[in-house]
Amino acid sequence: MNYLKAMTSIKVGIAGGTGYTGSELLRLLSGHPKAEICVVTSNSCTGKKIAVELPALTGQLSLSFEKTESDSFDGCDVVFSCLPHGASAELVAKASAQFPKTKFIDLSADFRLDGASYKQWYGGHDHPAPDLLSRAAYGLPELNRATIAKANVVANPGCYPTGALLALAPLAKLGLVSGPYIVDSKSGVSGAGKEPSRGAHFPDTNEALRPYNVGKHRHAPEIAMHLSAFAGKTASVSFTPHLVPMNRGILTTAYAKPAPGVTVEDIRAAYDKVYADEPFVHHVEEVDVKNVRGSNSAHVNAWQNGDFVVFASAIDNLVKGASGQAIQNMNLLFGHAEDIGLPKVGITP
Amino acid sequence: MNYLKAMTSIKVGIAGGTGYTGSELLRLLSGHPKAEICVVTSNSCTGKKIAVELPALTGQLSLSFEKTESDSFDGCDVVFSCLPHGASAELVAKASAQFPKTKFIDLSADFRLDGASYKQWYGGHDHPAPDLLSRAAYGLPELNRATIAKANVVANPGCYPTGALLALAPLAKLGLVSGPYIVDSKSGVSGAGKEPSRGAHFPDTNEALRPYNVGKHRHAPEIAMHLSAFAGKTASVSFTPHLVPMNRGILTTAYAKPAPGVTVEDIRAAYDKVYADEPFVHHVEEVDVKNVRGSNSAHVNAWQNGDFVVFASAIDNLVKGASGQAIQNMNLLFGHAEDIGLPKVGITP
Amino acid sequence: MNYLKAMTSIKVGIAGGTGYTGSELLRLLSGHPKAEICVVTSNSCTGKKIAVELPALTGQLSLSFEKTESDSFDGCDVVFSCLPHGASAELVAKASAQFPKTKFIDLSADFRLDGASYKQWYGGHDHPAPDLLSRAAYGLPELNRATIAKANVVANPGCYPTGALLALAPLAKLGLVSGPYIVDSKSGVSGAGKEPSRGAHFPDTNEALRPYNVGKHRHAPEIAMHLSAFAGKTASVSFTPHLVPMNRGILTTAYAKPAPGVTVEDIRAAYDKVYADEPFVHHVEEVDVKNVRGSNSAHVNAWQNGDFVVFASAIDNLVKGASGQAIQNMNLLFGHAEDIGLPKVGITP
Amino acid sequence: MNYLKAMTSIKVGIAGGTGYTGSELLRLLSGHPKAEICVVTSNSCTGKKIAVELPALTGQLSLSFEKTESDSFDGCDVVFSCLPHGASAELVAKASAQFPKTKFIDLSADFRLDGASYKQWYGGHDHPAPDLLSRAAYGLPELNRATIAKANVVANPGCYPTGALLALAPLAKLGLVSGPYIVDSKSGVSGAGKEPSRGAHFPDTNEALRPYNVGKHRHAPEIAMHLSAFAGKTASVSFTPHLVPMNRGILTTAYAKPAPGVTVEDIRAAYDKVYADEPFVHHVEEVDVKNVRGSNSAHVNAWQNGDFVVFASAIDNLVKGASGQAIQNMNLLFGHAEDIGLPKVGITP
Repeated sequence: MNYLKAMTSIKVGIAGGTGYTGSELLRLLSGHPKAEICVVTSNSCTGKKIAVELPALTGQLSLSFEKTESDSFDGCDVVFSCLPHGASAELVAKASAQFPKTKFIDLSADFRLDGASYKQWYGGHDHPAPDLLSRAAYGLPELNRATIAKANVVANPGCYPTGALLALAPLAKLGLVSGPYIVDSKSGVSGAGKEPSRGAHFPDTNEALRPYNVGKHRHAPEIAMHLSAFAGKTASVSFTPHLVPMNRGILTTAYAKPAPGVTVEDIRAAYDKVYADEPFVHHVEEVDVKNVRGSNSAHVNAWQNGDFVVFASAIDNLVKGASGQAIQNMNLLFGHAEDIGLPKVGITP
Repeated sequence: MNYLKAMTSIKVGIAGGTGYTGSELLRLLSGHPKAEICVVTSNSCTGKKIAVELPALTGQLSLSFEKTESDSFDGCDVVFSCLPHGASAELVAKASAQFPKTKFIDLSADFRLDGASYKQWYGGHDHPAPDLLSRAAYGLPELNRATIAKANVVANPGCYPTGALLALAPLAKLGLVSGPYIVDSKSGVSGAGKEPSRGAHFPDTNEALRPYNVGKHRHAPEIAMHLSAFAGKTASVSFTPHLVPMNRGILTTAYAKPAPGVTVEDIRAAYDKVYADEPFVHHVEEVDVKNVRGSNSAHVNAWQNGDFVVFASAIDNLVKGASGQAIQNMNLLFGHAEDIGLPKVGITP
Repeated sequence: MNYLKAMTSIKVGIAGGTGYTGSELLRLLSGHPKAEICVVTSNSCTGKKIAVELPALTGQLSLSFEKTESDSFDGCDVVFSCLPHGASAELVAKASAQFPKTKFIDLSADFRLDGASYKQWYGGHDHPAPDLLSRAAYGLPELNRATIAKANVVANPGCYPTGALLALAPLAKLGLVSGPYIVDSKSGVSGAGKEPSRGAHFPDTNEALRPYNVGKHRHAPEIAMHLSAFAGKTASVSFTPHLVPMNRGILTTAYAKPAPGVTVEDIRAAYDKVYADEPFVHHVEEVDVKNVRGSNSAHVNAWQNGDFVVFASAIDNLVKGASGQAIQNMNLLFGHAEDIGLPKVGITP
Repeated sequence: MNYLKAMTSIKVGIAGGTGYTGSELLRLLSGHPKAEICVVTSNSCTGKKIAVELPALTGQLSLSFEKTESDSFDGCDVVFSCLPHGASAELVAKASAQFPKTKFIDLSADFRLDGASYKQWYGGHDHPAPDLLSRAAYGLPELNRATIAKANVVANPGCYPTGALLALAPLAKLGLVSGPYIVDSKSGVSGAGKEPSRGAHFPDTNEALRPYNVGKHRHAPEIAMHLSAFAGKTASVSFTPHLVPMNRGILTTAYAKPAPGVTVEDIRAAYDKVYADEPFVHHVEEVDVKNVRGSNSAHVNAWQNGDFVVFASAIDNLVKGASGQAIQNMNLLFGHAEDIGLPKVGITP
C-alpha cells in the first residue's frame, strides 16, 4: 500500500469475507486504484491470515480476519456486507446508526424487496430495519444511477435479477414489451455459494443439468417487483432457474410478445440506444457467458422466434451479478468513474 | 460370436459407423443378446479395423470398416443409416429397392418431415425418395408403436424432438395443453457431432453457454409437425436450443398455459397414466440429465409457475435421442421386447 | 424378476447401498443375468425406497433400504460390503460367523493390508478380525484368480492400486522392471465419495488441479505391499495422487527403469502376452480414461522416455476400480465367466 | 485512450492476434496503464474489427486487424509475435532489421533453443536467423532478469518449461537437487491452441485424460537445455505431458532425489528465500492451478515421498505460461515495475 493511495483512497470494510462474494471483492479490490481494504471480518476464521484461507491472495494482502461486529468497521468509508440475509440487515442497521457517514452496500437480499414481500419470501418475520429498507436504493446503476448516488444503503441486486433486468427492464420501460414474461435462467454453480452441499457436489453436478426451485426461487419476486417498478406497470414473471456444470456465468433466456407493431429490430435499436454510453453493458451478436467471464460486463441481444421475441443476457454471476456490481456502486457513491478498478474484458478461453 | 446367437440373431448393418451415433450403436449392439453386427461402413476409414479407430471397442469387435454402398448390406436384416441427410435417403432408397426384405432405420433427418418442409429446411431441393418418405414411420415408440411395427423404413427422431415430444405430445393429445409452446432446450456438446469445429472446441465450449440458431434450428419444424400430428391440431412452437458444457444429455424446459380448468396435478396424473407401462419413460420428482446418462431412459415432470406450466424432460441425446431409440425401434420391428439390450439405469455419477 | 432367474440366480446383499460404490453395484447388478438383488442396507435411509433416493433406478428396483445389521443378510449367497473401513470388517466378521456359506466381497480397505500395516495406516488400532484377514484373498482377478476362487472373503482392491498394479505387477513379476517406482496418479472426483466436502465442491474443483496427500495416501502401502508380493521382491513406491475435474476415471502414469537389456518393446510384448486372454485388460496404443468410462475394462501401454520407461493405465475408478471388479470377483467365486453382466465397451463420448 | 497515456505509453504491436496468446495479450494490455495497442495483425482476419472477432473485447478496442508484414509495425516500441514457429523468426528478423529501436518478444518457439536443437526438433532445417538467435534472451524474468533487460529479442518461454523451471531451476542452481528429473505435467486444453482439432474437440476431451507425445514433445529439449544452463551442469529430463479437461492451467509434478543430506525443509527454505521478493512466484502450502487462474502468478511447493522429493508448480498457461510473462518481459525491457498491468490474484472459483 503506498502512502499516496492510503491518503486518498476509500477505506473499505468487508463483513463476511470468506464466501465467494467476499473473496471476489478481495480479488477485485486488491487491484482497485482508489480503494484500501482496511478490515475484513469472518466469524468462522477470526484471527486467521486471509491469504492462508484464500491462497489466491498470497502476496497481496497481509490482513487477518476480524470478528464480525459493528465496531470492527470504525473508520470505514464504505462497508460491503456479504453476510447471510437477516444477519446482514442487523449489522447494517447497527453499524449505520453507529457510523452515520459510512456507506453500506449490502450483497444479501435484505434490502431488495419491500417489507411485505420480504416477510413472505424470507422466513415469515418482519423486516428487522424497515426504516432503512424504505431508504435503500436498488443498486443496478444502469437503471437507477441517480438514486444510488444519493443513498446511504445500497441493495446490491441478486445475480438472476441483474441478468433478467438488464435484458428486459429498459424495453419494458419504453413500452416495447409488456409481458407476461417467461424467464429461463441458467447459472454456473458458484451461485450456490461456498458451503459444500449435495446439490453442488462435483460428481453430482458435473455432466448434470436440472431446473430447481421451480416457482419457488426467491429471486422471482425480486425480478417481478423491480421489472414492474422500472416499467411503471405490473409485470407477470414466470422464473425458472437451472444449474449448469460450469463455475461462473448466468445466461438468461427470456420470452415475451412484443407490443403491437414492435419488431425485433426495434428492440435491438433500443438496446443500442439505451446502452450506448454504458461501460459495461453491450448489445452483441452472440450472447455467451464465456465472453464476460471474470469481468463486470453484460452482453444482451434479442431474436424473433415464432410468436415470441427471445431475449438473452450473459453476465458473470460473481462480478456483474454480485461483487463487481457492488464495486461499481461504490465507485458511483464516491464520485468516481463507475468502471475504475473493474475488469471489462472477459477471460476467454 | 457363439453359433446359437448367430443362428437366431438379427443381422445388422450400419452405414456410417465412425460418427457418434454410429459408435454408440456399436457400443450398445456389441452387448445386445439378439443382434449380430455384420457390416459397418465408413468411406473415410474403409479397410481400417473398427477397434483401432474406436479404441473403446478393443477386444469386442474384429471387423473392419467397409465402403458405404448398397451392396455392402446384402444379407442384413436391418440397416441403420448414420449418414448425413441427403446421402442417407439416397442409400436407403437404393438399398431398399435392392433388398426388399430388409428393414431400414434412418438416423438422419431425411424421413422425419413431409416433402414440403424437407425442401424448405434441408437445402431447397425436392426429397430424393418421396414415395419412401410417404410410407416411413416416425420412430417414437411411446407415441407411434403400432405404425412403426409395420414399417419398412423408420425415421428415427431428432434428439431435441424426442425430448420435447415425450414431455408435451401426450398432454396435447389429451387436450390438457394446447400451446403456443415455448421450448427452451439445453444440449450437451456431443449433439454437435464428431467433426471438430469452432463451436465445439473445448476451450471455447467449456465454461461457456449460449443460445444458438434461434428461430432457425432444423429441429423446430420437426417438433411442430409431430406435436401437431399427435395432438390432432396445429401447434405453434418457439424453439430455442442452447449448448451446455457437458458431453451428453438434453434437458428440455417447455412452457405453455394449461387448458381451462386443468391443474398441474392433472398433468402429472396424465404422465403417470400414459407412461405407466413404459420401460423407458418415467415421471419423476427431479428431472436431471445425470439420471439418464448412458441409458435409453427419459424422465419427465411438470410444475406450476405463475400463469404457465413448466414441463421438463431429460434424455441422453445419443441414446434415447439417437442410437438407443434406433435399437428400441429395431427390437419393435423384429417382435422383441423393446428393452432388450438397452441400458435402463443412468450412469451416476 | 422372472421365476427362472430367481431360481438359479446368485442372491445378493449389499451393505451400505447409498454411496457411490453401492449405487454402482445396483446399476450393474440390475442388468446382471445371474444375480438377484435381495437386500440393500443403509442406516441413513432405512425404510426409504431405493429408487427414490437414487432416481436413476426408477422403474428398475422396488426394494427399500433395510437397516445395516448382519441379520439382514440371511439367505444371501454373497454380500458386498460398501461400509466405511472398520465398520466393514466388523460386519463381515459377524455375518460370516453367522452365515458360513455366504461369500463376502469387501469394498472397504479392511482386508487389503496385513495387520501391521492396517494398524499403522488405519487409525492405530489392531485389526478387528485378524483371523479373517489372514484368509482373505486380494481381489485382483488378472493377478490372483486361483486364490480368489477358493476364498470366502475377498478384499476388493483400492482404485489407485488397481490401476498401478495392472500396469506394473506383471512386469515386475517377470523381472522386466524392478523399481524404485514413481506412481503419479490422476483421479476423477467420484473417488472422493458421495459426501459433500470442500475438496469436492464443484466451484472449487472444476477448473482446478492439485496433488493431495503427497506421501500420506492410504493407497500407497497397498500398492507397495501387493506389488512386492506379486513380484516376489520388495518394491519401493513413491505414490502421488492428483484430483482432476472429471467424474470418473483414473489415469496412472508410472516411471521406472527397465531391467538391464530390457526394451520398451519387450514390455509391450509382455503386456500382449500376459493380457492376451483377458476379457477386460488390453494393451492399446493410446491410453485415455474416456475409452474405459462406465466399463470394467482397463487399458495399458508403455513408452521409452529418456532413462525411464513410462507406464500408463486407464480404468474407471467406480467400475474396474471398485464395483465392477467386485462383480468380476463374484462371477469368479460362483463359477461363471468373469465378464457376465459387466460392460466392456467404454462410453465415448 | 486518453491523451496523457498516449503520450507516455509504450506503443505496442501484435503479430498474429487471433489465436489464444494474441487475444490474451489484448485482454491484458487493454487494461495496462503504460501500454497503447497500436497495431494488431492477422492474415486470416485482415480488415475485420477485432472486437467482432473477439467479442469479449466489445467496447474496449476499435481497431481492425491489419495484414501481417513487417511494415505494419512501423512506429511500435515493442512487437509481440504470436505467429507459428518459423514464420515468427522470419518476421522478427525482417522487422528488427527494419526497425532497429524496436524490441521484440517472441511467443513462438523460434528463439528458445540453440541452432542444433532447433534443427532437430523443429522441422530439420537450419534456423532462419542464427545471428538473432545467438543474441536472444530467454525470457524467464525470475531466473534471467539482467540478461532480458538488455536484450532486443526476448524468447518468451514455453508454457511447460515455465512451470518446470520455476519449480526446479533455482534448486538445481543451488545444488539441492541434480537429477535425473521426471517431469509429469498436466495441462488445460487451451494449450492446444485455438484451431479446432480431434484432440481438443469437447466431447472427446471432456471427461477424458491421457498422456500424449510421450518422449516426443518439443518442450522436452527446452526444459532440459535451460535447466542445464541455469544449473551449470547437464540435466537429464524425462518429460511427459498430459491433457486435462479444463480450460487453463498447468500443474507440473516433478520427481528427483535430493542431493545428499538435503531435506525437503531445505528445499522449502530455498523457495522462500529465492522467491521472497518476487511479485508473482510464491511458495504455498497447497499447489492448485485454480489459485493462479487468469493471473500471472506461480505457486510452488515440495514434499518428501519415499526416496524422492516431489516438486509441484501451478501456473496459468496463457498468462505466466505465455502472454502475461510476455508483458512482464515488456515491463522489464522498458524499465517499469514488472508487475504493472498484470493480475496477481487468481480467479477463484
